[in-house]
Amino acid sequence: MASVTVALITISCLLTPTIISASGDSLQDLISSGNYEFIDLSHAFNNLTSSFPGILKFKFIKKSVNPSGDKSAWYAANDFETGEHAGTHIDAPYHFYEQGKYVGDLPLERLIVSLRVADVTSKVNGNADYVLYKKDLDNLLNETFDKPCVLLFKFGWSQYFNDAQKYFGFDGTKAKFPGLSTEVAEWIITNKNILGVGVDSPSVDPGPSTDFAVHRILSRAGLYNLENVNVHGQINEKKCTALVLPMKIEHGTGAPVRLVAVCPKVTL
Amino acid sequence: MASVTVALITISCLLTPTIISASGDSLQDLISSGNYEFIDLSHAFNNLTSSFPGILKFKFIKKSVNPSGDKSAWYAANDFETGEHAGTHIDAPYHFYEQGKYVGDLPLERLIVSLRVADVTSKVNGNADYVLYKKDLDNLLNETFDKPCVLLFKFGWSQYFNDAQKYFGFDGTKAKFPGLSTEVAEWIITNKNILGVGVDSPSVDPGPSTDFAVHRILSRAGLYNLENVNVHGQINEKKCTALVLPMKIEHGTGAPVRLVAVCPKVTL
Repeated sequence: MASVTVALITISCLLTPTIISASGDSLQDLISSGNYEFIDLSHAFNNLTSSFPGILKFKFIKKSVNPSGDKSAWYAANDFETGEHAGTHIDAPYHFYEQGKYVGDLPLERLIVSLRVADVTSKVNGNADYVLYKKDLDNLLNETFDKPCVLLFKFGWSQYFNDAQKYFGFDGTKAKFPGLSTEVAEWIITNKNILGVGVDSPSVDPGPSTDFAVHRILSRAGLYNLENVNVHGQINEKKCTALVLPMKIEHGTGAPVRLVAVCPKVTL
Repeated sequence: MASVTVALITISCLLTPTIISASGDSLQDLISSGNYEFIDLSHAFNNLTSSFPGILKFKFIKKSVNPSGDKSAWYAANDFETGEHAGTHIDAPYHFYEQGKYVGDLPLERLIVSLRVADVTSKVNGNADYVLYKKDLDNLLNETFDKPCVLLFKFGWSQYFNDAQKYFGFDGTKAKFPGLSTEVAEWIITNKNILGVGVDSPSVDPGPSTDFAVHRILSRAGLYNLENVNVHGQINEKKCTALVLPMKIEHGTGAPVRLVAVCPKVTL
């Protein structure tokens, strides 16, 4: 029976490129098919890049542009400094858990996974005091998360990224922006296929937090966080793939990350 | 039951060659199928990370580990500095061409493409004076490069990365390590689907170069370079997909890059 199966699959491959996974090159074909779009979920690093108090802001510390002055020898190269947790970045589990993994230890199999988006923008509705509780998760609570994934919460906060006052909501001593409740964090870690959590705000914890309880719950369970994610407009909530590729800082507590969603252009 | 399954697959292939991508979840299925492996082509950044003279080495400039001293409030976070061109990095076309694109301008469609590996390790044979000419490209010269791709040259040089004297081959004023000839660079840019060039050595130009002619040829044609690529062991030369995801430095002449090959585990 097995030999019949193989024979038929071979025939179908001759007719059509669909069963290319058997021939081993279907990923190349998918990527170049034009059927997927790449959505950049990363803010750019520049002199405006916001960062949490105490985290070094991104800055060029040396710019060399045509240092010889000879046009025929023109080149440019820069040096920079930044906090690991500035801009769109990953928190390694070690950031809040001494026994957790560093950035350099995170296996690629946990970084290239399905992307599940939970868009709660309309519930947040621009309210900086918003905290996400389980009751707001609706049908998400019933999902089985059958593939390894990153769960990205869209609060609608990316639009304020370049307005630090609004984005962080400082009022004297405390910050004010949306985040997750500990009950949501506890629910997340019961789903073993959720490997990382993303937010389009500065932190998985709500702005006023001082104990960073959500960070601690997720870190201890081995999850990574993606913070300051840049998510505008529509994005398919279930059918995208996340490429979570941080700068490979061996002993990093975090790192700048290039976060990309690869999404089907058309869903029938 | 197996025959029924196969029959259905065959029918769907006949009806539509993109049935899987049309349903929008085939990339997720491929990624989670277990049929692909992720090969990290990036060296880790640490205190040993090599860099070219004049390029700032990676360094943690502030490490905070449990700054309050209170175990219940434990966290760790670092700041760092580095040159854009240290470690495994991308050269944006602007690095050697004033009208070229910055890192932040590189479209994702040019960064997530097929990977073509040219393993010339046996020709280099550990010789730091080796320069790659067209005659050494053999059958590569006849390829059509029918999909957008990155062309990665494996000189067998990654193994020396953490031995700066051997890796750069300094002998007084000049460096000595393998690189490309200008005739190879000129040939590369005639292939419009080759969008970037990678090397497992410090530079696409050979070590002693002072005019960086290969950089100039590739930059003017709009190609990016990947330098200090980490490529050990066997890698499928034709069937992998490259994920070239640099830190998104808006006006970067280059940037640390996380470079990953996604390769079929088995080729039938």
